[in-house]
Amino acid sequence: MTFDFMLGRSKPMSTLLESRKTFLDAVVSPAELKRLDPLELQSFADEIREEVIQSVSKTGGHLASNLGIVEITLALHYVFDSPQDKIVWDVGHQAYVHKMITGRREQFKTLRQFKGLSGFVTPVESDHDAFIAGHSSTAASLAVGMAIARDHLKQDHKVIAVIGDGGLTGGMALEAINHLGHIQRNVLIILNDNEMSISENLGGLSQYMKRIKQTFFYNDIKQKIDEIEIQLDNIKLRPVIRDLISAVKRKAKERFDTPGIVFEKLGINYTGPVDGHDVNAVIRALESLKDSDAPQILHLITQKGKGYAPAEEDSIKYHGVSAFSPEKVEPAQPPKPKAKTYSESFTEALIDLAELEPRLVAITPATAEGSGLVKFGKVYPERFFDVAICEQHAVTMAAGMAKAGLLPVVSIYSTFLQRAMDQVIHDVSILNLPVIFGIDRGGLVEDGETHQGVFDIAYLRSIPNMTVLAPKDARELRDMLFTAVSERRGPVAVRFPRDMALKAEERYSFKKLDFGSWEKLKPGSKLTLLAYGAMVDAAERALPLLKEQGIEPALVNARSCKPLDESMLAELACDPAHKLVTLEEGCLSGGFGAAVLEWAARRRAAEPGVKLADIACIAIPDHFVEHGARNILLDLTGLSPAKIADFVVKFTS
Amino acid sequence: MTFDFMLGRSKPMSTLLESRKTFLDAVVSPAELKRLDPLELQSFADEIREEVIQSVSKTGGHLASNLGIVEITLALHYVFDSPQDKIVWDVGHQAYVHKMITGRREQFKTLRQFKGLSGFVTPVESDHDAFIAGHSSTAASLAVGMAIARDHLKQDHKVIAVIGDGGLTGGMALEAINHLGHIQRNVLIILNDNEMSISENLGGLSQYMKRIKQTFFYNDIKQKIDEIEIQLDNIKLRPVIRDLISAVKRKAKERFDTPGIVFEKLGINYTGPVDGHDVNAVIRALESLKDSDAPQILHLITQKGKGYAPAEEDSIKYHGVSAFSPEKVEPAQPPKPKAKTYSESFTEALIDLAELEPRLVAITPATAEGSGLVKFGKVYPERFFDVAICEQHAVTMAAGMAKAGLLPVVSIYSTFLQRAMDQVIHDVSILNLPVIFGIDRGGLVEDGETHQGVFDIAYLRSIPNMTVLAPKDARELRDMLFTAVSERRGPVAVRFPRDMALKAEERYSFKKLDFGSWEKLKPGSKLTLLAYGAMVDAAERALPLLKEQGIEPALVNARSCKPLDESMLAELACDPAHKLVTLEEGCLSGGFGAAVLEWAARRRAAEPGVKLADIACIAIPDHFVEHGARNILLDLTGLSPAKIADFVVKFTS
Repeated sequence: MTFDFMLGRSKPMSTLLESRKTFLDAVVSPAELKRLDPLELQSFADEIREEVIQSVSKTGGHLASNLGIVEITLALHYVFDSPQDKIVWDVGHQAYVHKMITGRREQFKTLRQFKGLSGFVTPVESDHDAFIAGHSSTAASLAVGMAIARDHLKQDHKVIAVIGDGGLTGGMALEAINHLGHIQRNVLIILNDNEMSISENLGGLSQYMKRIKQTFFYNDIKQKIDEIEIQLDNIKLRPVIRDLISAVKRKAKERFDTPGIVFEKLGINYTGPVDGHDVNAVIRALESLKDSDAPQILHLITQKGKGYAPAEEDSIKYHGVSAFSPEKVEPAQPPKPKAKTYSESFTEALIDLAELEPRLVAITPATAEGSGLVKFGKVYPERFFDVAICEQHAVTMAAGMAKAGLLPVVSIYSTFLQRAMDQVIHDVSILNLPVIFGIDRGGLVEDGETHQGVFDIAYLRSIPNMTVLAPKDARELRDMLFTAVSERRGPVAVRFPRDMALKAEERYSFKKLDFGSWEKLKPGSKLTLLAYGAMVDAAERALPLLKEQGIEPALVNARSCKPLDESMLAELACDPAHKLVTLEEGCLSGGFGAAVLEWAARRRAAEPGVKLADIACIAIPDHFVEHGARNILLDLTGLSPAKIADFVVKFTS
Repeated sequence: MTFDFMLGRSKPMSTLLESRKTFLDAVVSPAELKRLDPLELQSFADEIREEVIQSVSKTGGHLASNLGIVEITLALHYVFDSPQDKIVWDVGHQAYVHKMITGRREQFKTLRQFKGLSGFVTPVESDHDAFIAGHSSTAASLAVGMAIARDHLKQDHKVIAVIGDGGLTGGMALEAINHLGHIQRNVLIILNDNEMSISENLGGLSQYMKRIKQTFFYNDIKQKIDEIEIQLDNIKLRPVIRDLISAVKRKAKERFDTPGIVFEKLGINYTGPVDGHDVNAVIRALESLKDSDAPQILHLITQKGKGYAPAEEDSIKYHGVSAFSPEKVEPAQPPKPKAKTYSESFTEALIDLAELEPRLVAITPATAEGSGLVKFGKVYPERFFDVAICEQHAVTMAAGMAKAGLLPVVSIYSTFLQRAMDQVIHDVSILNLPVIFGIDRGGLVEDGETHQGVFDIAYLRSIPNMTVLAPKDARELRDMLFTAVSERRGPVAVRFPRDMALKAEERYSFKKLDFGSWEKLKPGSKLTLLAYGAMVDAAERALPLLKEQGIEPALVNARSCKPLDESMLAELACDPAHKLVTLEEGCLSGGFGAAVLEWAARRRAAEPGVKLADIACIAIPDHFVEHGARNILLDLTGLSPAKIADFVVKFTS
């Protein structure tokens, strides 16, 4: 890419672009950016956009959101002084451009790879990343906290939260805005409004913002009043009338003369809407707000996927992508294999179950695409509820539905269900309501620390009335869901990994399971592996490695960690010469292994002096797990077949 | 109380009040209520108010909120047909009146007592309780779920959510309203606006509602336009001008002519404000909204404590009260003893620490009174942040503060911290930020299932980087906080029970603790009790009972469940003839006991064949614990000294 068309510009550019470097070669930090002429910024934006497409086409990653925020990012760094000024990104996957111009362009080829650049912002990488962000709707709360800290420590800098219209649907973001309106601290909220979160965005607030853009009605009224005034100027009017008209006009202006009245009423000054792809318009807006001490919201309109036609047309498909060919319209993936992901198998099962059970409805908090549930919505649009990024509302709404006679299935990622733990306890489980949780991304995922689904087994297991299951393959996943739907006996959680599903080739007919009974898959001697969920496959693949070492353990599919199969446990543990090893893709603390240990402790308390088999636990150790391919992370945390075999060899020695 | 002044009224009343029964004697269900003449309702309201005061003065309970909602409750049951129509109460402690007129008046003397009437709504008690509610901000989500269920099942009834202005600050309520505005279901939201949650209510939305009441500005403008029109009628105007004026008026009316514009913009029709103590005005408003199919919000203005002067003047003090004398202005409690609660000791420690550490700030999500933190706010108003009922925002704001150099202490009840589990993981712990959590009401509380603080040990322990502590007395609580403040090394949780504190007589000087080391309190033989937090006291009181049985165990103050004192554990567990018993006031699943069991499993994995002491765990079994005095509940769950002794005797037999 050459820049002939930019030759002959102002001095800063010629300095920067000597030897025909690209802007990106020249801008290695915000300092160089600030030396660009404002007129050069749009060209720079185009160049960055091209680089983002090229880069993500090789590494995969979040494409559409990053193409949408190019100009906003440039404008922010042009006007403010990061890292002194704090730019807090909501859901940090929109920060690729920010990363590129804060010294991390060279590392982009390692994006989201093990030991490579994170797909999200994180202060571990750069001082320019004011905070970490993987989950949505945190930026406003963080910014309020940082502004209070700044004021308390008598510092002087700007705190800026960059939040999307999707993030704004999250309850915490609304809590923060409500609080900010009260305490009136100096915080600038950049609302990057592209009318969608991951899925189509939903909610009255979102529709309200859409109306702001469509009608600009406040201009209407102002214009009409102006017209009246002009006409009245030609008429002799008593002063009292003229005063009244002025009063109306003033009052209307004071109180209503803004499309952002909802924000204004909450105490946040509103500016906008402004075209978020006009970099100079954004800069002008930021400059005008820069020196304000009051809380401000700047409403910018952008288009996801901007500048790359396929992504503009289908930004949902291009939200997060694998590597693709930027030249073709279709992602350059190999022809779709017959194999399905667990998410796809889950959705297929729900579609089949919805036919059998008319009371079944499905709920997703803005992850219809990722969870595959969008297909369910196409078949049963009336029974499908995407509530936007509202995990709490999703779960409590499900509780209300269940109490009133429906059979709701909440499809949710393990990491996001953390947002609704209280709702699972307080609204679903105390009344023992039949809500089914389809927990996607249970276990390790490539996205890193913020997205690891490693706590669900532990926190769900501690809740009374919960049934906590994990299938060994897609067939068992179907049967678990079928059983939960048939029995309607209380909350049931079924977790599965982000991976290709085993035995997902066809839609098996449903079979009822006994949740309280485990499945003996293979006999053996001296040692039994109790594998939970995806670890059944890992254990099976460890068996040949163990056989080489002369060890032939039994293997049990421990499909339920709550309830446990206590009679099988009693049978297996009664021989003190025998050993048990639990395996789970979840945290060691309080997980499935702990459940088995607690069972043994209860046995010892009930029958003092009883001799039981020794029990060891393979699980994810007590630290946050970084990003990288799932297989790498499984090995890193001791859950690969090789590491499992190593553990067992040592434990039996 | 006689009703001479009501003699000679219409037939229904004379029927009901034959033999000079009171209204309350006559109204045993909503059916009788509906037979009252509308003019009788205010008298009935007065009678109920008297009964609530008399009743709560004997049993203790929530006074101010129930006095505030008398007329609203009567009006709801007068207009709607519960239980066919679903009345969903937010935070069910405002439902005493509802309970009285739905057949539970006789049981009121057992309010909040073990096996007595619950202090909250619960379907277990009555079909008129559409759902359970102990935590705030759930009603709108539940109502949305119930409305969807109703529509799906082709039923025909009204779903009504009764929510306070405090509850409306909770993010989940805002999520639900946003969603309702989008899906446009038939839900009526009753906004009971008394301008405070438990503490003074906060937030831009709350201030906005206050402005609605103060100014009624829309009437202003309408009036002014009307005046212009009248004046202009006397003047000859061109038709185009007259049209313009009409257009302005229509537009103004359409778009702005409502004080509830924020709700209207979100898609919810707004009516109000209406005086919530004028029972007939409320009935008229409800009647006018009854047949609407659209989502509606009815804004009612009430006064907490209405009708009882002491509670009107200090509704915070009378939010939840112990038994008192209704004749006196002051609660009839015995003179305050020197002893302090753990909450009071916690606040004292914070005040002392704030003097030493200028970066320390305190945050509470609307529990400043219950947690005693209101005192901190008086001493350090600039360093005290009550964020309203926003647990998520409280924690993430604290993360932002910590990242920016402050040392935030979040004071929060164990049961409410469940609302912010994701924020503890994602925003505080991944970056290992120095946020201190003062976890109040850790353990069993008299409020029942919805408020039990029994999960915190398990869910906090599973989070990497967390330190999870519980002091044996107020002195140790102070030292733990001091150490956490001094070391600033990452998130630290300190949990304490809702009870009188031990060793709280004076403000000891601070001493630094080693979190990783436990304290041997008493030597013994054959068995060691490892007691966590408040269980140290219970264990100490079990010792004499055990001595009678010839058992003299050692006792350890296991003040940290994360990290464990692994060297002490190794020393204690190395003798296989020895036994260990863990004690904790928390759930068995994944709790402190599980942590010790996991440690032993790790030892066995690291040193195959090692013989270790048998370990048993005393903790709260896997079911929700009902309401009643803490001592009763401790005994019920096996945590009283007597039950501990029984367990140990059996385990050592």
